[in-house]
Amino acid sequence: MVRLISYRRNGEAGVGVMAGDGGAVALALAAPNLPRTLKGILELDDGLDRARAAAAGRAADFALDDVELEPVIPDPHAIWALALNFRMHIEETRLTTSAEYPQIFLRIPASQVGHNQPMVCPRPDIAKTYDYEGELAVIVGRGGRYIDDADALGRVAGYACYNEGSVREFQRHNRQFGLGKNFEKSGSFGPWMVTAEEFGDPSDHAVTTRLNGIDKQRAGLDEMLFSVEQVIGYLSTGYALRPGDVIVMGTPGALPPAPDDVPAAQDSDRIPGRTHMKPGDTVEVEITGIGTLVNRIAAAD
Amino acid sequence: MVRLISYRRNGEAGVGVMAGDGGAVALALAAPNLPRTLKGILELDDGLDRARAAAAGRAADFALDDVELEPVIPDPHAIWALALNFRMHIEETRLTTSAEYPQIFLRIPASQVGHNQPMVCPRPDIAKTYDYEGELAVIVGRGGRYIDDADALGRVAGYACYNEGSVREFQRHNRQFGLGKNFEKSGSFGPWMVTAEEFGDPSDHAVTTRLNGIDKQRAGLDEMLFSVEQVIGYLSTGYALRPGDVIVMGTPGALPPAPDDVPAAQDSDRIPGRTHMKPGDTVEVEITGIGTLVNRIAAAD
Repeated sequence: MVRLISYRRNGEAGVGVMAGDGGAVALALAAPNLPRTLKGILELDDGLDRARAAAAGRAADFALDDVELEPVIPDPHAIWALALNFRMHIEETRLTTSAEYPQIFLRIPASQVGHNQPMVCPRPDIAKTYDYEGELAVIVGRGGRYIDDADALGRVAGYACYNEGSVREFQRHNRQFGLGKNFEKSGSFGPWMVTAEEFGDPSDHAVTTRLNGIDKQRAGLDEMLFSVEQVIGYLSTGYALRPGDVIVMGTPGALPPAPDDVPAAQDSDRIPGRTHMKPGDTVEVEITGIGTLVNRIAAAD
Repeated sequence: MVRLISYRRNGEAGVGVMAGDGGAVALALAAPNLPRTLKGILELDDGLDRARAAAAGRAADFALDDVELEPVIPDPHAIWALALNFRMHIEETRLTTSAEYPQIFLRIPASQVGHNQPMVCPRPDIAKTYDYEGELAVIVGRGGRYIDDADALGRVAGYACYNEGSVREFQRHNRQFGLGKNFEKSGSFGPWMVTAEEFGDPSDHAVTTRLNGIDKQRAGLDEMLFSVEQVIGYLSTGYALRPGDVIVMGTPGALPPAPDDVPAAQDSDRIPGRTHMKPGDTVEVEITGIGTLVNRIAAAD
């Protein structure tokens, strides 16, 4: 399985191909003519093939622990995200959504970090309800406009896990989610990109979110209201998708609460089974066929 | 008055300082040590001062007609935009909004063009209601987090005009505006940035939008529900504003329709006085103390 990472080592950005589970081949060494960003590699028709060929059979150049992992694509032109794309999540929020068109909003790059990097909980005087959302991230390879649904999966370069961390009070400040989905370093995107050929059909896979080792969300990706191909088709009616663009497919509902899962007194509108994150927590998003994105929660300065 | 432009000449990006109304000094010639993007210049504490000093007294290096003007900041980290920030626009849309918190959404760079470049009308089989929105664009200079409202105007590098072109059917597809505010090249940002010192207090100024020479919107910027300083303060509770970030302050309502201003038969939910844009139209956004942003409307491919 080819797994690509974006990382920083001694302050310098690079792209790596995982070699075993603890280390990676540095493409700057194995394929010095390739661009130094994953977005740049995806802009080349044969970029992924060249990266795969260059890394094949090579031993790791560095251990993962020796680098800082970045979001899989640190600087996409757009991060499109879906609200209310799983029936169970629609029911628990008691919100309505269109059955005809996906509900789309945007995140900015500053709102995301990479695997093993701290996700940042807002200061308690600013917000108290900071939540995980485990999701499938779709990474565009060959972009374009007016893409038929039937042709859409062929435009995907690969997939990753996404923790679409959300600040609920701010989402509810007004009609548009705005800042509530874009707090500094509130989300996470990783650990790596698995190529589309190897991941196969998204609907054969499942996502699980864990907080401090306890399962909090779990659903099959066949439970999505709008499929990956439908969302690509929809977005491309208005926008020419670009290599490296990210589409985050929405989160499932909460699993039933454990017997000892008691809400805090001030948290009157909490959804049963959903637990807000706080500094010191560890949150994981696992997708079958990809792996597990892990982040510790840190306090804001 | 110092007016800065971002442009491309023979494919190469540059920053210029207007010298008279028809031409500009190329900072690549006048100040070769400065960064080649306006965002890069704003990242330096003394970048604007150095640009101003280098251009003072120099004749224009090129005519505006010989270059392609880009959005004032072609690649901001974030383009924050406000919905429903003028009472008259709230009333005409019959929508509600919070009086306590601004309504925030995001645009992506691909959704904007520069002065004199074509804005693109969607294909008629995709959407029929493509509208202008004349707005004030705020360009961040010194960024940061947790900014007091009292300190906020001091963080602004300058101001420009923005045409926050919107595709109404897509805005209404679901709860979040999403794609309706982000059609490819649907908006415009220019013609230049006027520095904050020279522009002065935004509430002393007024915005006018014209379609084919007819006034369609006109309001004082003192009619905004949330002021520039309040919005900067709000955003900085969650996000560390960065140099070159753009905040687009919302659009006023429609002026009363002219006697010969008759809606098309299919346009049942049109707001009186608002006219959808179509290929061949010319749209202008003028703000006192800045100038006029002009774009022709082109048909999508």
